Amino acid sequence: MSPPVKDPRVITCKAAVAWGPGEALIMEEVEVDPPRPDEIRIKVICTSLCRSDITLWESKVHTPLFPRIFGHEASGIVESIGEGVTEFEEGDHVLTLFSGECMKCRHCISGKSNICETLGMERSGVMHSDKKTRFSIKGKPIYHYCAVSSFSEYTVVHSGCAVKISSAAPMEKVCLLSCGAAAGLGAAWKVADISKGSTVVIFGLGTVGLCVAQGAKLRGASQIIGVDTNPAKCEKGKAFGITEFINPNDCSEPVQQVIKRLTNGGADYSFECVGDTGVISTALQSCCDGWGLTVTLGVPKAKPEVSAHYGLFLSGRTLKGSLFGGWKPKSELPSLVDMYIRKEIQIDELVTHDMPFKDINKAFDLMREGKCLRCVIHVN
Amino acid sequence: MSPPVKDPRVITCKAAVAWGPGEALIMEEVEVDPPRPDEIRIKVICTSLCRSDITLWESKVHTPLFPRIFGHEASGIVESIGEGVTEFEEGDHVLTLFSGECMKCRHCISGKSNICETLGMERSGVMHSDKKTRFSIKGKPIYHYCAVSSFSEYTVVHSGCAVKISSAAPMEKVCLLSCGAAAGLGAAWKVADISKGSTVVIFGLGTVGLCVAQGAKLRGASQIIGVDTNPAKCEKGKAFGITEFINPNDCSEPVQQVIKRLTNGGADYSFECVGDTGVISTALQSCCDGWGLTVTLGVPKAKPEVSAHYGLFLSGRTLKGSLFGGWKPKSELPSLVDMYIRKEIQIDELVTHDMPFKDINKAFDLMREGKCLRCVIHVN
Repeated sequence: MSPPVKDPRVITCKAAVAWGPGEALIMEEVEVDPPRPDEIRIKVICTSLCRSDITLWESKVHTPLFPRIFGHEASGIVESIGEGVTEFEEGDHVLTLFSGECMKCRHCISGKSNICETLGMERSGVMHSDKKTRFSIKGKPIYHYCAVSSFSEYTVVHSGCAVKISSAAPMEKVCLLSCGAAAGLGAAWKVADISKGSTVVIFGLGTVGLCVAQGAKLRGASQIIGVDTNPAKCEKGKAFGITEFINPNDCSEPVQQVIKRLTNGGADYSFECVGDTGVISTALQSCCDGWGLTVTLGVPKAKPEVSAHYGLFLSGRTLKGSLFGGWKPKSELPSLVDMYIRKEIQIDELVTHDMPFKDINKAFDLMREGKCLRCVIHVN
Repeated sequence: MSPPVKDPRVITCKAAVAWGPGEALIMEEVEVDPPRPDEIRIKVICTSLCRSDITLWESKVHTPLFPRIFGHEASGIVESIGEGVTEFEEGDHVLTLFSGECMKCRHCISGKSNICETLGMERSGVMHSDKKTRFSIKGKPIYHYCAVSSFSEYTVVHSGCAVKISSAAPMEKVCLLSCGAAAGLGAAWKVADISKGSTVVIFGLGTVGLCVAQGAKLRGASQIIGVDTNPAKCEKGKAFGITEFINPNDCSEPVQQVIKRLTNGGADYSFECVGDTGVISTALQSCCDGWGLTVTLGVPKAKPEVSAHYGLFLSGRTLKGSLFGGWKPKSELPSLVDMYIRKEIQIDELVTHDMPFKDINKAFDLMREGKCLRCVIHVN
């Protein structure tokens, strides 16, 4: 018998493959299958590196799944479409969605949830339809990540895991709206629903935290306190709206006490954007009795258990989780892109580095060392 | 020098005094001072025993403060008023408030909080104004409890820690609205704001849990699942609106899995009414992704730390605390009493025992053994 004939529609291209936890990515030639029904294949233009790529790659908390192609915050162009796909055409500009929207399940139709039952937060590393991968190297399957895998020149995603955007949007900037920037803005607007004149404290001034600050400022918060152990975040924070900066390492008392004093009893809202479950209790303690709301956005790097004294709740506090800022990704993300085009929200200042695809490991180094906000990797 | 002359307005009466953690109460002759400015002295008619009286008396989690007069769920008649009190007159029928309302602080005027900055949840065992007690035995001060101390024939409270009610209300029933019954109804209506057709799960079918069930039923919830390890709670639960009963001891799998199956993915709302922080995580897991809301009402008997996996929040759940069901006690409690008079809410079925004051220790025994819902103690 002759060997099976390779589908002529398979694309061979470069991808940065992670072979094991914490191991530097290797630029490999991978084969990318054509899209199956309800899928699209995307030529990735730009992908930015998000902290959760690193968290999952390090696999200290989460189950390791290797070899794998990470990356989930990306812009691209539709290269081809699978059977039954009607909403995309070749050449459409898109953002990828790490948590998709099927538009049909009880969550998608509820108006109350952005966590699609079918396409929300894929964790298995394989495609939804057939539980297989679309990437391989010499026949060996390579796992997907978050249904996106944008550290590849081409990727295949479910059509519910991408959204068409205006072709006027600069790809090398709006990729940030595919995860971090939108997550922060949505946490402020949709999840916390910050009201004018209120007080806000933000733990962690990375991309997500800075976008919470931006969201709070645009809502007219009167006091926006940024907390970060990196003193370099003070200036950047102020550019995004923070009114006060606290470095806990400079405080002679617990940071929550400083915040309580500054806010006359505790902030109206606090946000945990560090990715440290230990900070959630501090964030709760930094809120006021009665109506204090703590929103947690981070994916923890270590201990996955949240722990807090019951009295914080009994005295009227609420702890709420925020995935992708509560945005329904397909329905709502294009309007954020349009806001950016109209210069109503700022993203450019979050891009601290641009680099070619081959230098992707430098982006990993910069983020692990806390020396960047977003590194935009120009894949194609 | 002659000894100080005793104020003729001091009342000497019977009170059940706790002398040490977990020690049976002793019926003592105590001296009750007249009310100081802004205070009232109340002739206690009925007091019911609430689980948190026992929790604080056992002092396993909380700082012991003895000797002390417990009791905080009571009805009574104003015996005398202090200087400056205008809203009460001698003879007024009142309910006591373990968490008061000053009507002036930023919480009271906020419309968002029922936790008064001045009179909310008094924990020091002394009166607000002068940090002294109004009870003594031969000159030795006896601590107050929750600003109420209703296990006494007479007690002195701040005028913000009592509320006038209709004289048509039966004292031996509406005392339950002073804490437990109102806490459950409010958790369902004001804190969770249960919507018609929703699914509800309640952990712990004591007085509070049964009143959550009642509240859920009155809001038109389609499914109300009661969870309790005491099989006797099944029948009582059904009388208060539960549609299904689960005894976790009868389940071959974790109770949250049973609930997820029964509710097609998790309930819209879950309530922790056990007073066990460990149950909070189970309650969160019993809720659905996307919009699941867990309300915690209990005062824990042991471990004060709440612990839960961060993923429960990231996938869209909210954990909210409820003190006194979110009711503003003075502003809103009288309307609940009126609802009872109009037979719109049920309380009578929660009273499992009536007993004279001298038998108060029997009520403690019954509650510790899980053999009662509410024991109403007829004090005067």
